[in-house]
Amino acid sequence: MILPQALRPGDEVRVVSPASPLTPEKVQRGVELLESEGYRVTYGNHVFAADGYLAGNDQERAADLMEAFTDPNVKGIICSRGGYGCARLFPYLDLDVMAASGKMFGGFSDLTTLHLPLNRRGLVTLHCPMLITLSVEREPWVEESFRAILKGENPIPETAFKGETFVGGSADGVLTGGCMCLLGDSLATPDPLDAAGKLLSNEDVDENPHRVDAMFTQMLNAGVLQSAAGIIIGEMTGTDDRLDEKIGAWPWRKIVEDRLASITVPTIINFPFGHMKNMLSLPLGVKARLDADQGTLEILDPICAASQ
Amino acid sequence: MILPQALRPGDEVRVVSPASPLTPEKVQRGVELLESEGYRVTYGNHVFAADGYLAGNDQERAADLMEAFTDPNVKGIICSRGGYGCARLFPYLDLDVMAASGKMFGGFSDLTTLHLPLNRRGLVTLHCPMLITLSVEREPWVEESFRAILKGENPIPETAFKGETFVGGSADGVLTGGCMCLLGDSLATPDPLDAAGKLLSNEDVDENPHRVDAMFTQMLNAGVLQSAAGIIIGEMTGTDDRLDEKIGAWPWRKIVEDRLASITVPTIINFPFGHMKNMLSLPLGVKARLDADQGTLEILDPICAASQ
Repeated sequence: MILPQALRPGDEVRVVSPASPLTPEKVQRGVELLESEGYRVTYGNHVFAADGYLAGNDQERAADLMEAFTDPNVKGIICSRGGYGCARLFPYLDLDVMAASGKMFGGFSDLTTLHLPLNRRGLVTLHCPMLITLSVEREPWVEESFRAILKGENPIPETAFKGETFVGGSADGVLTGGCMCLLGDSLATPDPLDAAGKLLSNEDVDENPHRVDAMFTQMLNAGVLQSAAGIIIGEMTGTDDRLDEKIGAWPWRKIVEDRLASITVPTIINFPFGHMKNMLSLPLGVKARLDADQGTLEILDPICAASQ
Repeated sequence: MILPQALRPGDEVRVVSPASPLTPEKVQRGVELLESEGYRVTYGNHVFAADGYLAGNDQERAADLMEAFTDPNVKGIICSRGGYGCARLFPYLDLDVMAASGKMFGGFSDLTTLHLPLNRRGLVTLHCPMLITLSVEREPWVEESFRAILKGENPIPETAFKGETFVGGSADGVLTGGCMCLLGDSLATPDPLDAAGKLLSNEDVDENPHRVDAMFTQMLNAGVLQSAAGIIIGEMTGTDDRLDEKIGAWPWRKIVEDRLASITVPTIINFPFGHMKNMLSLPLGVKARLDADQGTLEILDPICAASQ
């Protein structure tokens, strides 16, 4: 296991855009948060590039990532936004070099695509807010959680909401998962989601109800859900707003309850982990304990190496 | 290989709803078409059931399918509509029995989910209009193609449009594929898409542009596209209508051209195969020849066993 170095005041944090584009005003509030912790924020060369749904072409986005991971001055890398685009980068990335760098790497949503191969190569990564996420004010504990994880501290504040018991019991396992559609997109690739014996987290945004069903069903048909030691269902933001007339719909809660009906491992739903309202920062690739009776998750191992 | 029996006047054709629901008026025009060929149309017990996006619960939809495949009086099975739901049926289906029945089975879109395992078990199946598709008038050659394939005749009329050359050359291979999101959903399951040495067809409907990109990218990252002997890109219906501001967008044509830029096998795009306007009926699981210079597909082997 490769633990990233905890950030200290004065450390350089590089902002990169490996997926979809955004405008400079969308990073401002998040940059102020990082600077308030004493970090020096720098930017990848193409961080505000835009071509359709991509923040610059694949080579440009990949070059920014590789530069951030190989520049010895850069201590942490935070993504500006998700959207879509990380899966296109694999031909241009050296994942072994990225993982071996031991740098702190944070983001979520489309970044799930990079967490999986980096975790598989041993690097602990951070499922945490991105700059665009921080452009609007969140619950205080969301920022508290984010500030804590960057320092290598426990990112699950007492004040954060708990999940609801779906299947009781408790389970220890390495934390994996993230955004469902990207977890699905990883299947059959060289670095597929592997949930066996792990705690599998799932959240997504703006999916049609039947697609949420389809993603759970694929995970069932592939044996992924059944192989997990425990399951953590976060937000399915926007799904209930898409109860479309064309194909018919179920609310996401009914979908989750239906698709997980056969699951016997400890499972919680509505955990404060997702795209919009609630956003705990969580380390991926470290051992955690799911207490599904209490609806809580506890990180068991260190998240970061001590600063030097 | 198990060839279905060609239909003859007087044969019973069973209509089933293994996926999403529909109302009786949506099948009327298609039933008239089937009856005009002299077929006797019967209905699965739950064909008009509805629960959200499903035409009845999984056990009901699966029971209708199994009954159709095992009833010796039923000669052909045509699905009423796709939508979503077939992937949920696997726990309740006996795919070996279905394939060994040698019955004609037709549908597309969500039915891709059933074509793959039936083809893998040797049964030739029909990628063809469903009852809901026939509820509105199509180009004359669409109905001509459908009527032909049910009789085991060549379903590619001279009057059908051709595809456009993307990579020239020609290739022979077994025809596979269908609706992209369902092809993706098959990956890592017991019956995944296997395009190696085959002619891989792809079409989809109402997908966000970046999701079309993501599906092609997964197929690239998984090596699926590169393994095919030839590639046939049909319609991506509705994708260009979703050039959303939130994430940014590319027209689907640009997406296809970008994602297939590294493909060196014979490939055509805009083949008249898809969800809305153009809908050739095609046999899946039989050998065909793609002439990518001419933009044509030719079925090389018999589609059906001779009627007895």
